[in-house]
Amino acid sequence: MQALVLTEQGPRLAYDYPLPVPLPGEAVVRPRLVGICATDLALIRGYKGGFRGILGHEFVGEVVDAPTASEWVGRRVVGEINIGCGECVLCQRGLHKHCRQRSCLGIVHKDGALAQRFTLPVANLHEVPGHLSDDEAVFTEPLAAAVEVLEQVRIVPSTRVFLLGAGKLGMLLGQVLALTGCDLTVIGRHAAPLRLLKQWHGCQTLLSDDDALGALAAAPADVVVEATGTPQGFELARRIVRPAGTVVLKSTFPGDMTPVDLSGIVVDEVSVVGSRCGPFAPALRLLEQDKVQVKPLISGCYALDDIMHALAHAEQRGVLKILVRV
Amino acid sequence: MQALVLTEQGPRLAYDYPLPVPLPGEAVVRPRLVGICATDLALIRGYKGGFRGILGHEFVGEVVDAPTASEWVGRRVVGEINIGCGECVLCQRGLHKHCRQRSCLGIVHKDGALAQRFTLPVANLHEVPGHLSDDEAVFTEPLAAAVEVLEQVRIVPSTRVFLLGAGKLGMLLGQVLALTGCDLTVIGRHAAPLRLLKQWHGCQTLLSDDDALGALAAAPADVVVEATGTPQGFELARRIVRPAGTVVLKSTFPGDMTPVDLSGIVVDEVSVVGSRCGPFAPALRLLEQDKVQVKPLISGCYALDDIMHALAHAEQRGVLKILVRV
Repeated sequence: MQALVLTEQGPRLAYDYPLPVPLPGEAVVRPRLVGICATDLALIRGYKGGFRGILGHEFVGEVVDAPTASEWVGRRVVGEINIGCGECVLCQRGLHKHCRQRSCLGIVHKDGALAQRFTLPVANLHEVPGHLSDDEAVFTEPLAAAVEVLEQVRIVPSTRVFLLGAGKLGMLLGQVLALTGCDLTVIGRHAAPLRLLKQWHGCQTLLSDDDALGALAAAPADVVVEATGTPQGFELARRIVRPAGTVVLKSTFPGDMTPVDLSGIVVDEVSVVGSRCGPFAPALRLLEQDKVQVKPLISGCYALDDIMHALAHAEQRGVLKILVRV
Repeated sequence: MQALVLTEQGPRLAYDYPLPVPLPGEAVVRPRLVGICATDLALIRGYKGGFRGILGHEFVGEVVDAPTASEWVGRRVVGEINIGCGECVLCQRGLHKHCRQRSCLGIVHKDGALAQRFTLPVANLHEVPGHLSDDEAVFTEPLAAAVEVLEQVRIVPSTRVFLLGAGKLGMLLGQVLALTGCDLTVIGRHAAPLRLLKQWHGCQTLLSDDDALGALAAAPADVVVEATGTPQGFELARRIVRPAGTVVLKSTFPGDMTPVDLSGIVVDEVSVVGSRCGPFAPALRLLEQDKVQVKPLISGCYALDDIMHALAHAEQRGVLKILVRV
């Protein structure tokens, strides 16, 4: 089959990749639409060094085979990407996504969705409501990651929140944060996405190279959500969060350890909260209820045949979501 | 008056230090007993570089003058050590202890309690219940700092907690954590204090050079409280906390930035919570109700005349609280 394979020599479009064979409990999925995520680009640049195989983990597709759960065949689905061992202490406490032996679709030890077929445990699948388009459903995975912030940190209408980054993930985070009615300021590098957030939710926006940035420290935030994926983002977050406030780290940065003033964190009683994948059910519900806009975030759509152009486009500054039609 | 003054040349017992003059709203306090804290020792070693003046911030004393609140004269008191400006955004939100212009008794811009007299705003004072001895009341400030952990992090009976460090602060933290009925394991460098915690609360204890330490990672904690004040403590905390768990940083480390794997914090969705000073009222109540043992933590008591020996004693490994009778 056709598949985007990450090899030692970089990404390569294969035409003769073997069809996947489902493990017990797994379904075979034919993807319809796959999103390219910052993590895919980081994996290509060598993040975590290790992953070799088919990329892609944001998808909407159709179940074409499910040997142990045939009722799923024909359903349109999205799917959670972490697969725990099911037996360790963490899995037994419901923390599958943190299982130390986990695989992760298109990221760790598991071929991903940028192929004509892939497999995933039926337990990971969520059926897509009929009136949601593929264009919308394909955002479920990153939207769930944005929702995760609200699962972890209490944000109420009087909470003053700064969001750093209005890229692919930031545009979803901005909308999810705005749902709470909080006092939201979004700081980004590009005017166009900020304008959208302002138009949709009336939130304050600020260009990150704006002189006004320094002034933020004078009226610090209760919560800062860092979604720039840069060490500079963390530094800025620490500078503009109030004492006893919370910094949510929403994106991984490739590479080295970051020097952190731990004593400053103690003295200021700041909380630093790491945040990764989130719950699919509320993400699907928000899409269904039209509470989050995703179509305006699509910067381009390519055929799998044309994946190399899709990747090049996704790498450009200011580009939001690139989709791949399989 | 007699006072322990930290000068450019180090700590020095002065005999001719001028008596303090109370500012509006301040009381003059004659300390009866003062505790030596790790922060005092760190200040002497040069932590934060800046402080010059009289050391000492853990005290029980008697109000001898209070020009604007004469009803306080004669009362036996303990006192909160942070003094905010009262006017900034943080002070107006009740975050005096985090005021950017704050002074801090014996630590920042404010002469401390290791002297025959010192001053503190009346608003910072708490009267000591009559039947609490000075030996007990002098622990109010560090006990409040231990209580702060429970104010910040939800710890319930089924929470698995590891406490790293069973020193001056660790012995208070261990007891406060045990109050919650949580599943507590205390890891320390010395057998004697661990034995006390085991005897009082039946909690598990482990010597930190024990081979068993590695095994902790196999059954990781929901919450790790780091009270060793070393960068190694943070590393160990990260290794033995479960994904989606919490590391509480309870002690500052002098010196440099610590290299931190921020991406690891994101992937594991760990929360890192800085924790400093805490509320006095519950600390006094716990002492009154005899729920926390403090007298067995006293390793020595010296006269102010003999403060240099007191400091040398406090610096020794395995020594817990050294008190100074003024």
